[in-house]
Amino acid sequence: MRALDFKVPGFLFSGVSVGIKKDGKRDLGLIYSEVPARIAGLFTTNTVKAAPVQLNLKRIKGGLCQAVVVNSGNANACTGAQGLRDAERISSWVARGLGVGDELVFAASTGVIGISLPMRKIERRVSELVESLSPEGWMKTVESIMTTDTFPKVEVATCRIKGKQVKLCGMVKGAGMIRPDLATMLSFLVTDANFEARVLQRMLKTAAEESYNRITVDGENSTNDTVLLLANGKAGHPSSNRMGRDAGVFQSMLSEVCQNLAKSVVKDGEGATKFIELLVRGARDREDAKQAAYCVAHSPLVKTAFFGEDANWGRILCALGHSGAQINPNRIDVFFDNVPVVKGGVGTGPQLEQRAGKVLKRESFKVTIDLHKGKSQFSVFTTDLSIDYVKINASYRS
Amino acid sequence: MRALDFKVPGFLFSGVSVGIKKDGKRDLGLIYSEVPARIAGLFTTNTVKAAPVQLNLKRIKGGLCQAVVVNSGNANACTGAQGLRDAERISSWVARGLGVGDELVFAASTGVIGISLPMRKIERRVSELVESLSPEGWMKTVESIMTTDTFPKVEVATCRIKGKQVKLCGMVKGAGMIRPDLATMLSFLVTDANFEARVLQRMLKTAAEESYNRITVDGENSTNDTVLLLANGKAGHPSSNRMGRDAGVFQSMLSEVCQNLAKSVVKDGEGATKFIELLVRGARDREDAKQAAYCVAHSPLVKTAFFGEDANWGRILCALGHSGAQINPNRIDVFFDNVPVVKGGVGTGPQLEQRAGKVLKRESFKVTIDLHKGKSQFSVFTTDLSIDYVKINASYRS
Repeated sequence: MRALDFKVPGFLFSGVSVGIKKDGKRDLGLIYSEVPARIAGLFTTNTVKAAPVQLNLKRIKGGLCQAVVVNSGNANACTGAQGLRDAERISSWVARGLGVGDELVFAASTGVIGISLPMRKIERRVSELVESLSPEGWMKTVESIMTTDTFPKVEVATCRIKGKQVKLCGMVKGAGMIRPDLATMLSFLVTDANFEARVLQRMLKTAAEESYNRITVDGENSTNDTVLLLANGKAGHPSSNRMGRDAGVFQSMLSEVCQNLAKSVVKDGEGATKFIELLVRGARDREDAKQAAYCVAHSPLVKTAFFGEDANWGRILCALGHSGAQINPNRIDVFFDNVPVVKGGVGTGPQLEQRAGKVLKRESFKVTIDLHKGKSQFSVFTTDLSIDYVKINASYRS
Repeated sequence: MRALDFKVPGFLFSGVSVGIKKDGKRDLGLIYSEVPARIAGLFTTNTVKAAPVQLNLKRIKGGLCQAVVVNSGNANACTGAQGLRDAERISSWVARGLGVGDELVFAASTGVIGISLPMRKIERRVSELVESLSPEGWMKTVESIMTTDTFPKVEVATCRIKGKQVKLCGMVKGAGMIRPDLATMLSFLVTDANFEARVLQRMLKTAAEESYNRITVDGENSTNDTVLLLANGKAGHPSSNRMGRDAGVFQSMLSEVCQNLAKSVVKDGEGATKFIELLVRGARDREDAKQAAYCVAHSPLVKTAFFGEDANWGRILCALGHSGAQINPNRIDVFFDNVPVVKGGVGTGPQLEQRAGKVLKRESFKVTIDLHKGKSQFSVFTTDLSIDYVKINASYRS
């Protein structure tokens, strides 16, 4: 069931333009919970972590959060000790404006790496950011986290727990630097559900495993990847500190919302013209399936062939061959949707290849690779590699 | 010292057009040694090996070779048992035409994967291929191995061993599917030097380690990669079955020729507009240096920034952060040629970045990354990722 609005009881949102982005669009956003919310978070596995990520990693130990301040246009990454001080100062301005403790304010940034934040520009607008908070401000916050995204990516869902309606709203920004282990640069989820932080964290991890950790655009892993889930408990159902039936109901909703958000990130991948589900099955074990799937999904030759709508399945076999996964080249089958293009490692002939070519003309299709080595499988969502990807990334900073 | 012609005593060359390539250019080549030559070879590490590679892997055990037949336009890969039979039949036709044993004929193919060779077309022209062999035919063979290459890549060198002049000629085709572990799809080297096969193999391996295994265009590892070194002993210096001073002289020449050939492959990388040497130094160990270097060299975001001549060093740090190499983000230095753009993990400011931007406008430059973690280093040669790379690979088969 889908609700039509992005209001969640007890949460307020805002977004303003402070001039970090050159085009004058919103670039500073705020999410505020009237009461301290339980928080769960997932962060980039990149060794190079942006300043706001470092800040959040400390604060999340407290398990509570009352505000998230986020900017786009500047990643505040590779900015040294100054960067960390800047992130702390911004969260402190927001904390003062809201009248909450510093340690309850989380931060997130996305944009260019290596340039210090324009602190004066930000300081001047913090009061406006706080004062314009509104239950209806959701889309303004969403706009303020977008960079090369071509459309806002939002999801909303409801469920019932012990007779109470529970709502969940999620936003994500993505587009570039998308890959496993937090493909999404930034995703924020707010809900009025009532769960302990430990349970929330476990549910978020499960949801991410099947969503944000399954998508890849270009194999890059950002310095800023952040997913935060805030739950303020206002729905009023009894709290729970373990995974029971109630948590199961919420988990389903959370997983579905995260999957939809993750897929929308791939669909809006930089320059993407195709949305591809890539399933490797019949693998010896899950690790092999994953390795094979990502190696094919990251192959520039496979991706450019998809862009060219060319059923060049040889490139898929070639990528499998150097993926490190255990394969027998003479036993591999490949399907484009339901059209077999490879059987036992060789092509199925021009007629089927022509039919496969028609599948590639679709905007969205599924590539299934059967290794016939075992019973494990893994699927990823990915895109083609287009001329526009190069154009966007060659001129990103100019 | 560079000689001007591509004649090597005792070797004959030819190249004809049999219609595998659609454009009517030469696509079948032959290298012939009047006497059985000692042979050394290196082949793809891809699990999916093309039929001619499988054939060569068997025959090289004999240590001798008298002919190499090579075609472009069709890789004879992923063609199953039929593909292996085809490779055997072609080598057998050539063996009969030359009056030598089948086991002395090696084969190589490059081109589209997954389509059976047009055997009739080839059979009809084998006699012409054999009859047109000539000491001056070198460039015809070179043409017949080119695919998306925009220029022929050849090297020639001489040295003196025990008072005898020794000559070495090398050719390579590359362009796409270039990466470590035999970046070169096909490279053939012929010499009149006199060394045992075991010594030759060791020298070839050493030379490849510093040349073909150091270059990367797009991280792909082909099904067909083949490097063959034929030595017929006609120079007349005493043979040697171990690495002595004579072998050292030859090794230097071989390494230099292979390095020049490898660099020319990168320069002619598909759509490449930049030639980049990427050095990682100060690494904990060589493996870390290698891992870091390749992760940066394969990053699409780094490569598109180079194409856009954008000194976006943040992307380099980001790539290092997810390379798996041991790094301390706060101790990394980065130089573009001799311009420091990052010191201790942070940018050196707009002035130096502007100077770095000018370095990127050059056709060829060096990126040095100092991890300050140890004393090991590794360098690779790579290219940018351009709009033309995508165009070439989206339409390769059409």
